Amino acid sequence: MAVHAAVAGASGYAGGEILRLLLAHPGIRIGALTAHSSAGQRLGAAHPHLLPLADRELEPTTARTLAGHDVVFLALPHGQSAAVAAELGEDVLIVDCGADFRLADAGEWEHYYGSPHAGTWPYGLPELPGAREALRGSRRIAVPGCYPTAATLALLPAYAAGLAGPEAVVVAASGTSGAGRALKPHLLGSEVMGSMSPYGVGGTHRHTPEMAQNLTAAAGEPVTVSFTPTLAPMPRGILATCSAKARPGVTAQSVRAAYEKAYADEPFVHLLPEGQWPATASVHGSNAALVQVAHDTRAGRIVAVSAIDNLVKGTAGGAVQSMNLALGLPETLGLPTTGVAP
Amino acid sequence: MAVHAAVAGASGYAGGEILRLLLAHPGIRIGALTAHSSAGQRLGAAHPHLLPLADRELEPTTARTLAGHDVVFLALPHGQSAAVAAELGEDVLIVDCGADFRLADAGEWEHYYGSPHAGTWPYGLPELPGAREALRGSRRIAVPGCYPTAATLALLPAYAAGLAGPEAVVVAASGTSGAGRALKPHLLGSEVMGSMSPYGVGGTHRHTPEMAQNLTAAAGEPVTVSFTPTLAPMPRGILATCSAKARPGVTAQSVRAAYEKAYADEPFVHLLPEGQWPATASVHGSNAALVQVAHDTRAGRIVAVSAIDNLVKGTAGGAVQSMNLALGLPETLGLPTTGVAP
Amino acid sequence: MAVHAAVAGASGYAGGEILRLLLAHPGIRIGALTAHSSAGQRLGAAHPHLLPLADRELEPTTARTLAGHDVVFLALPHGQSAAVAAELGEDVLIVDCGADFRLADAGEWEHYYGSPHAGTWPYGLPELPGAREALRGSRRIAVPGCYPTAATLALLPAYAAGLAGPEAVVVAASGTSGAGRALKPHLLGSEVMGSMSPYGVGGTHRHTPEMAQNLTAAAGEPVTVSFTPTLAPMPRGILATCSAKARPGVTAQSVRAAYEKAYADEPFVHLLPEGQWPATASVHGSNAALVQVAHDTRAGRIVAVSAIDNLVKGTAGGAVQSMNLALGLPETLGLPTTGVAP
Amino acid sequence: MAVHAAVAGASGYAGGEILRLLLAHPGIRIGALTAHSSAGQRLGAAHPHLLPLADRELEPTTARTLAGHDVVFLALPHGQSAAVAAELGEDVLIVDCGADFRLADAGEWEHYYGSPHAGTWPYGLPELPGAREALRGSRRIAVPGCYPTAATLALLPAYAAGLAGPEAVVVAASGTSGAGRALKPHLLGSEVMGSMSPYGVGGTHRHTPEMAQNLTAAAGEPVTVSFTPTLAPMPRGILATCSAKARPGVTAQSVRAAYEKAYADEPFVHLLPEGQWPATASVHGSNAALVQVAHDTRAGRIVAVSAIDNLVKGTAGGAVQSMNLALGLPETLGLPTTGVAP
Repeated sequence: MAVHAAVAGASGYAGGEILRLLLAHPGIRIGALTAHSSAGQRLGAAHPHLLPLADRELEPTTARTLAGHDVVFLALPHGQSAAVAAELGEDVLIVDCGADFRLADAGEWEHYYGSPHAGTWPYGLPELPGAREALRGSRRIAVPGCYPTAATLALLPAYAAGLAGPEAVVVAASGTSGAGRALKPHLLGSEVMGSMSPYGVGGTHRHTPEMAQNLTAAAGEPVTVSFTPTLAPMPRGILATCSAKARPGVTAQSVRAAYEKAYADEPFVHLLPEGQWPATASVHGSNAALVQVAHDTRAGRIVAVSAIDNLVKGTAGGAVQSMNLALGLPETLGLPTTGVAP
Repeated sequence: MAVHAAVAGASGYAGGEILRLLLAHPGIRIGALTAHSSAGQRLGAAHPHLLPLADRELEPTTARTLAGHDVVFLALPHGQSAAVAAELGEDVLIVDCGADFRLADAGEWEHYYGSPHAGTWPYGLPELPGAREALRGSRRIAVPGCYPTAATLALLPAYAAGLAGPEAVVVAASGTSGAGRALKPHLLGSEVMGSMSPYGVGGTHRHTPEMAQNLTAAAGEPVTVSFTPTLAPMPRGILATCSAKARPGVTAQSVRAAYEKAYADEPFVHLLPEGQWPATASVHGSNAALVQVAHDTRAGRIVAVSAIDNLVKGTAGGAVQSMNLALGLPETLGLPTTGVAP
Repeated sequence: MAVHAAVAGASGYAGGEILRLLLAHPGIRIGALTAHSSAGQRLGAAHPHLLPLADRELEPTTARTLAGHDVVFLALPHGQSAAVAAELGEDVLIVDCGADFRLADAGEWEHYYGSPHAGTWPYGLPELPGAREALRGSRRIAVPGCYPTAATLALLPAYAAGLAGPEAVVVAASGTSGAGRALKPHLLGSEVMGSMSPYGVGGTHRHTPEMAQNLTAAAGEPVTVSFTPTLAPMPRGILATCSAKARPGVTAQSVRAAYEKAYADEPFVHLLPEGQWPATASVHGSNAALVQVAHDTRAGRIVAVSAIDNLVKGTAGGAVQSMNLALGLPETLGLPTTGVAP
Repeated sequence: MAVHAAVAGASGYAGGEILRLLLAHPGIRIGALTAHSSAGQRLGAAHPHLLPLADRELEPTTARTLAGHDVVFLALPHGQSAAVAAELGEDVLIVDCGADFRLADAGEWEHYYGSPHAGTWPYGLPELPGAREALRGSRRIAVPGCYPTAATLALLPAYAAGLAGPEAVVVAASGTSGAGRALKPHLLGSEVMGSMSPYGVGGTHRHTPEMAQNLTAAAGEPVTVSFTPTLAPMPRGILATCSAKARPGVTAQSVRAAYEKAYADEPFVHLLPEGQWPATASVHGSNAALVQVAHDTRAGRIVAVSAIDNLVKGTAGGAVQSMNLALGLPETLGLPTTGVAP
């Protein structure tokens, strides 16, 4: 019997992508679709690409419309998830694509978000050591941020194998859908096409502590992250270029071996053959993460690069992958590993 | 038992897209993948987005490598299909994505292609009157050109209902993948980004007689087509803006009614609600065609616009849809109707 | 002594482009820069590319701030120009980039704009017969719309030479800056990149009557226009594909001769050599218009294509070119004819 | 009397951009335009955006065609400049846009280029301490690489003021024109649009030693550089995100002060107001470099970002700026500081 799923925030990009994936998921029946200002509209007006749901109506995001489902995906602005979760009951699986429950350290939360910490839920990055086990059977999931997903998958093997020094540098380029559907001047097509620009420079981006949390967990010692996000002229995709000092004794061979071992059994993370580098186009629409790594002996650094689709592995795909684990379904069920390219 | 399918020309864009669709098709087992200059390479080098096939090797395109399959898709340069087909035997289903067998009129073929006419195969546009029936059980399929697919679906209801005059004007914008993967200066990213340009102006594009053939069939009388293709700064998609004079007595209501009737039961052609216009992004990766129509009473013309993905409904999706019919499978099997957007 | 120029609406795309051109104009001293909601900001916040003016402050758009200049450029929303003009005095040269004074026929204005007709000013397309003379010494200029500029330059020689039938079909692709800087969902980068879509289909776009007015003037008899604008994934540029039935007796030679004659002495309109077709990238940032034409003998149509930069020849460049004429300066002064490509 | 200038390699992107700038330069008369495989073509076929030169013919690149000019710009493949220079005589100003004469260390040259070192010419980055003086009156100029220009301008003040540790990390995104006009599969529009990808990862890019050379000169002690270039879906522009550890005692104030002091008098380098970050679109077509810097106290790093147009300040503009100095002309003559945006 199909699992009955609702999506709150269905008119945004994350919500739309969850629906795209759920439409192809053989174990899911799509229930309520809710929105805030778009409530009352046809879904086809918000997401003309979701033809099978074109005539479904967006309902208001309330406990009432979300009640009675087995799974509720929350694709809401930060700070709204706790209140909704409180009303839904403990046996409903809540998959939160917002930031509210990602960080374990209340101080870090308050430093970056300026509001009280709501708590910590099992973290929806199954590739992180221990995460897969914590997700199985869970009824609460905190879906990682898109940048932390990309950066963590790039550097995880280096830290888990003790090859990298404690100061990581991450520079990532994101497609514009990562900034959501809000009407902001710098997100206009006229502004973004033909242009690259950074934002949140100097460690102020809220995904910074999440990266540090993940890499610290992998390393077993504190890791700091210098993170610079940039906006790229493409609708989707994240390319994360990540590096750290190579510890003494590290060789190209030991780096390669660590990455091969780390991802040999991961269904969605693909270490590319040597000499081939990831391109975001290769994972357009796919839940795969492509990873490659090099050892720069002159500069003494390990340089790892990952490419993901920010809306899939970086959001909706990570959410569905974690949902599968929580529900006891095969982890890969319904999730594409082929990109739509060119 | 799964149908065993080979793809000749697997390293190109059309070949890659056929493989992307076949990977998601529940009734297909992918056999030989062949190429010309790329033979010997891993498929992952040509198509890094097709992860499940990354380690498959490209074989040379020969009768020997293609033998022993139930279906052979040909994604070859024009003029090569007849020779391959002759070697494969009459009970193999051959789905030709090239132009060789599309035109019924040998004179038209010779005028536009400058070579002897190879023949005419059942035409893989099931939406065209009579085509669906001709495809059922056929062992030869001529997949339509991408522009003719877009233009025909836009104007078909108007001609079938006798509403449009015999001189159609089609201006279509195509993504660059429509020009294939050949290394031509005007296809470099530096040249195409930020630029729109026409080509084949004045009726010289080889898709012109194919459009005329289709619309003539729909109208039951000769239709001429003025066709101008343009190259748009996007990798995929065709937007076809098509118009013809409205015959006397035509009204907005009669136009709307004709389109609603024509496409009411078509699984892949969606007439949009009034006031909503198609965007190519909505069908990115999908086999759907979005159509909308208006009656311009001042200019006295019916204006119809369609959006398709040139590589899906315009090539590989049309090929698989027709294959399904030929094999007696459900017509929609394995074909997506949700686009990957934004 | 330099002419003192003010720009009202300086924070928008048209206003910014006027400033970019005036900065390079040897006869102009830039005075007041005014805006509505951005008043009080540094210009560098609105237009970081205009470095020499980065620290200038945007003032409110009032008669007071605009007073005391020799030339006032109005880059305001439709309907606001008449009131501003009334306050500025008759000897100030007012160059209106809005639509208010473009149409000669009050009925057409009211049909398309739904408001009373404000009047008709000399039309700022010097290439139109008689327009150059009317602009010399004028103190009022109605700058043409971007689409009418492109379509008129494409078809003008055909109509002026009596070669084309009275029903023109225009399909044009525009970069997103043509839609202005307003925060509208469909103009977000995530929506426009990788997508083509039409709008104002069926003759409802307000530039339609302006095209008909121009072509009617050229032909000396009524010309109707079926016009479909489309939005292309690029920030700038218009490619207009225009056609009309060829009158009896027309030949490729007579068409070519008419175009060569029409544009032989025009400084900004370049008929390309036969076989070369215009690309919008070639006029990026330039005031040039590239034109090419073909005679489709099978379809019996003349097909002409033009490429302009919608913000330059289509708006700000056309404005400065007309200003030069009005002020008695050399028509080409300060206007680039080299594009920024690739 | 105008300086007579020739351009060797005029059919490529660098050559075309030199011509675009020279066309607007009041002190230059454009002489021979030479090419290799395009010799004999009209320039308009290679560069349709350079209308004033459209009918000029490309001549073969020989000492004979290049003789008799005051200045010769070389936009040739690496390794060809020395031979051409030898034939031109010592009193001709040779401005080499290739790499041959950029590096001072023969061992570094041989490590990265695998060929004998040709020598070292005055380095065409006037902003580098001592460079401006060395360029005045010189008859040989080695124009810097585009990435080194961007990275050096970003980090120069930090190193010159002794604020940054000796290990720099540079991640830069470049538009595709940086890869030139060669027909390579990964440069096709279909491949680059919608995609970000790295290349030359792990310190193998040939611009790495040039960055280290510049930053070492600024710091007065050895600086190593970890450099990762990425290809971005835009035709032009480089965004360089650069960082290094902050030395003890460094504060946000001391960083800001160092950058303000370093660039206060530079005509082409603009330190943006605090809170505003550079976008490549702002310098499209302009010789300006936009710089911004932050002090990340948590990660203990100085993070500096620069945006340039790779073809202007990164190549042709840097070349003309240096030429102006060599010829005793005003350094800024003929060089735009306004970008073409949006």
